[in-house]
Amino acid sequence: MAVGLVPPDNLLAIDGIALATCSAGIYNNKSRDDMVLFELSEGTSVAAMFTQNRFCAAPVIVAKDHLAQNNPRYLLINAGNANAGTGEQGLADTRELCTSLAANCSVNVEQVLPFSTGVIGEYLPVEAMTSSFPQLKNKLSPDNWRMAAEAIMTTDTIPKAVSLQAEIGGQTVTFTGIAKGAGMIKPNMATMLAYIATDACIDNTVLQQASQQAVNRSFNRITVDGDTSTNDSFVVMATGAAGNKPVNTDEDKQAFVSCLDEICIWLAQAIVRDGEGASKFVTINVQNGLSKTDCLAIAYQVAHSPLVKTALNASDANWGRILAAVGSTGVDSIDIKQLKIWLDDVCIVTNGQRSPDYTEEQGQAVMSRAEPVITIDLQSGTHSETIWTTDLSHDYVTINAEYRT
Amino acid sequence: MAVGLVPPDNLLAIDGIALATCSAGIYNNKSRDDMVLFELSEGTSVAAMFTQNRFCAAPVIVAKDHLAQNNPRYLLINAGNANAGTGEQGLADTRELCTSLAANCSVNVEQVLPFSTGVIGEYLPVEAMTSSFPQLKNKLSPDNWRMAAEAIMTTDTIPKAVSLQAEIGGQTVTFTGIAKGAGMIKPNMATMLAYIATDACIDNTVLQQASQQAVNRSFNRITVDGDTSTNDSFVVMATGAAGNKPVNTDEDKQAFVSCLDEICIWLAQAIVRDGEGASKFVTINVQNGLSKTDCLAIAYQVAHSPLVKTALNASDANWGRILAAVGSTGVDSIDIKQLKIWLDDVCIVTNGQRSPDYTEEQGQAVMSRAEPVITIDLQSGTHSETIWTTDLSHDYVTINAEYRT
Repeated sequence: MAVGLVPPDNLLAIDGIALATCSAGIYNNKSRDDMVLFELSEGTSVAAMFTQNRFCAAPVIVAKDHLAQNNPRYLLINAGNANAGTGEQGLADTRELCTSLAANCSVNVEQVLPFSTGVIGEYLPVEAMTSSFPQLKNKLSPDNWRMAAEAIMTTDTIPKAVSLQAEIGGQTVTFTGIAKGAGMIKPNMATMLAYIATDACIDNTVLQQASQQAVNRSFNRITVDGDTSTNDSFVVMATGAAGNKPVNTDEDKQAFVSCLDEICIWLAQAIVRDGEGASKFVTINVQNGLSKTDCLAIAYQVAHSPLVKTALNASDANWGRILAAVGSTGVDSIDIKQLKIWLDDVCIVTNGQRSPDYTEEQGQAVMSRAEPVITIDLQSGTHSETIWTTDLSHDYVTINAEYRT
Repeated sequence: MAVGLVPPDNLLAIDGIALATCSAGIYNNKSRDDMVLFELSEGTSVAAMFTQNRFCAAPVIVAKDHLAQNNPRYLLINAGNANAGTGEQGLADTRELCTSLAANCSVNVEQVLPFSTGVIGEYLPVEAMTSSFPQLKNKLSPDNWRMAAEAIMTTDTIPKAVSLQAEIGGQTVTFTGIAKGAGMIKPNMATMLAYIATDACIDNTVLQQASQQAVNRSFNRITVDGDTSTNDSFVVMATGAAGNKPVNTDEDKQAFVSCLDEICIWLAQAIVRDGEGASKFVTINVQNGLSKTDCLAIAYQVAHSPLVKTALNASDANWGRILAAVGSTGVDSIDIKQLKIWLDDVCIVTNGQRSPDYTEEQGQAVMSRAEPVITIDLQSGTHSETIWTTDLSHDYVTINAEYRT
């Protein structure tokens, strides 16, 4: 029941990247694929970012460690088990998977980056996973993006993937990305795995900078339930196969960042559109604040308010709940007499109270839309921020109360 | 369906306090009482605390203003309409109510404190309310505590009131308190109105200090949904009729604070027990932290996590969600290798991972209880904090999605 999202079509292969999927019987539903292998051509630049949760899952610890040592050649992903809260054995399990895969693929162990998503606190079925490596290796192909997008899903209802092309440095460059995530979604980062590949030629340092920028405008601007996962990981791979001059001029950087932004925002929004139990895709703009920090604090307070979220679910233009949420942030720069709030183009609050011309019917009409925009104008400065979120529905409770049963 | 809460019985009158209730047709269900009048004997000491939401409702603004000018003689409360987000007209309406009541009761206008709770953004039916004043005045009696507890309810399912007696300064002193609140409940303070009266003799300054302490241990330690209301108000009235020597010695202060603590904690817990859609009354202890601030940050992160709350609702001992919530607070002093978590007396996490002896059956047994205790031991310092919260249920969504419809 994702809001305004359809399964991906026409995903473009990325020269230098091959993928494979298979089932290792990790996921509840044993018949579906739950393992993905990425093979990166030699010389591929890689940038990565990980969860800010203090309890990193074992694969996050190992992936960071490996990245610091060598250039990755393989990414190994499983869904259905997060290998988090599993202590020393969890670390040993992840290391064993990497060692075994490295041996199978004749690379060094630190050239394998591991990723896991799913239930916390269960040990991985290591033997079943390593047994699948020969099969995975045999199935590697540049055309398996859609299958990979499906194999990394957990509570997602729809695979999330997108491709785009642009001219960079006089060459046509292609980007394809996949992501998963539907709950435990909060900035820094969402409960999500995201993998973006491009054939652009760009060195690691420039790629890392561009990636950080793009993440801050996309995956760090979404929230479903305010919970932060132990496993969030985001990887950008650039194979260089397009043959462009390495991205380095301001113009080329701009063009590259623009593509990466677009694909990251698309994937981040796709995660919100498929948010657990979501019936609404909600954009929250906070405008004219004294600082970006103020704007973000207010935006998240509104986005995380269960009362605002249930009002959105009920298509109830209960603007008082938005007002109360804004007021409870404790941001000193808020001046109630300056505050304006819009639902789409309907002004509902002026000077901190209901707009004189506002009618319930107008508010109701906007709130009934699948993709309402809440705009909060602080009229106190020049900074703005935008985040995306969902409503809170019966289905969210059902999904999360019954996840393990 | 309040958890472990029954309607109040045997409420004790407080010498010097009279109450009355009536219906002014404000509440949806027009047949129920929705107005309360308190009459305080002359010389009654009064302490009060109000919401920290930056958008104070009109009655909060006026009550603070009046308190600063004179000793209160009347409290006027209505349920069903919060008179919040109503701007200048809201302020004028509240002032008109106070002026009219003051004239009826022959006191100065600033001796009336107004309170409102209910829907935000609607104007009060001032004329219907002022018309009820003669009736309210006629019905004043020391014995109407139970009726007052009922008349201030909004989404509450059960009236909340309690009495206690103790020896203070050689005299038997009586306390009776009532409170309302079920949703939009977060520290500083809950969406709540609470009124506690005692016949103890205590001056305003000592009473204010004792009240602040008691609120910090009770109403500022509860959360249902993390939303803070625009109308929270807490009033303690001490008539002095018990004839004790004014509370001033350390021993007497201790005895008084102890009574006030007990009654405040009882009322605060009653609000959580009646939390919107609550099927669980959950105590969260965070122990051995480096500071109280750290302990509270972690306690609230766990209490506000929709994933923890839905797991509680499902009686699912999903300790990984508790671990993830603790880790996402960003508290620097957390050392994952030191962390222990208990459900009641069952240790579920040791050294940041599942305890070796722990079984799902043990966790399930605790989580199935109506009043589970989650204890998080940081093993990094000497500070502790305790808060109380609820689960997140389908009923919460239903209540809040349908509140106005």
